[in-house]
Amino acid sequence: MKLALASITLTAMLAVPFAAQAQAQFAKPEDAVKYRQAAFTLLGAHTGRVGAVVKGERPYDKAAVEADVAVMEMVAKLPWTAFPQGSEAANSKAKPEIWKEQDKFMAAADKMQGEIGKLSTAAKSGDLNAIKTAFGAVGQSCKACHDNYRNK
Amino acid sequence: MKLALASITLTAMLAVPFAAQAQAQFAKPEDAVKYRQAAFTLLGAHTGRVGAVVKGERPYDKAAVEADVAVMEMVAKLPWTAFPQGSEAANSKAKPEIWKEQDKFMAAADKMQGEIGKLSTAAKSGDLNAIKTAFGAVGQSCKACHDNYRNK
Repeated sequence: MKLALASITLTAMLAVPFAAQAQAQFAKPEDAVKYRQAAFTLLGAHTGRVGAVVKGERPYDKAAVEADVAVMEMVAKLPWTAFPQGSEAANSKAKPEIWKEQDKFMAAADKMQGEIGKLSTAAKSGDLNAIKTAFGAVGQSCKACHDNYRNK
Repeated sequence: MKLALASITLTAMLAVPFAAQAQAQFAKPEDAVKYRQAAFTLLGAHTGRVGAVVKGERPYDKAAVEADVAVMEMVAKLPWTAFPQGSEAANSKAKPEIWKEQDKFMAAADKMQGEIGKLSTAAKSGDLNAIKTAFGAVGQSCKACHDNYRNK
């Protein structure tokens, strides 16, 4: 219950317009780049672990998948405050479109978090087929954002 | 309740001897280095935000501190599987002592997670003095590990 509350609080915090909040939270643009890349690194690692199960490369272990998805859910909330204006640093793959169409970018971020929420429900159900379906939707939401907002 | 269960599951997973588990989770030593550095980046960022409140540089907002500490709690669980044998990469500050005294290293990791747990309790209480005390202990547990196991 308390954790759920903390999670809601976090979501509410992150609903604050992200450019404004980001300025308050990162002293330098490089700090924001490092922070968001760290969040995506963890998100990618745990998504990859679930993906290996979905692809049959790793045996299905309900508890392990639940733990990986719990990390995905938490870290997926984090990167969005870390795209302040002026953080198009050389060591970032972020496309300028992020700052030109912030509403669309944030909608894509919300979409991904929603799909991870559904994956979490599937992971808790222990139904591998439901996990596969939900994981596919998560993957599409990742890809949609990468295609539009991330350089290769 | 479900989140709490996921948290317990995660903790149980991480109790598996970390060298063995790490080998299964990271294809290359560099992946492990990147993963653990990402976890510490997020841990440092959110610890810094709470630290700014503790030092009076930022006004105390109960919900914001709770959210930061919730992230700290989650990411503090992660780095420990990401120190596989052979991951003393050039781009890592990890000292060889980590692999020479794994029990002591893991005890220091557990100590830090325990102190963050106490900080979480304090954050939920809304008592800023309790937060300051608990935060001091978290900081000491970070420093102890950095002094022994991390190059400057």
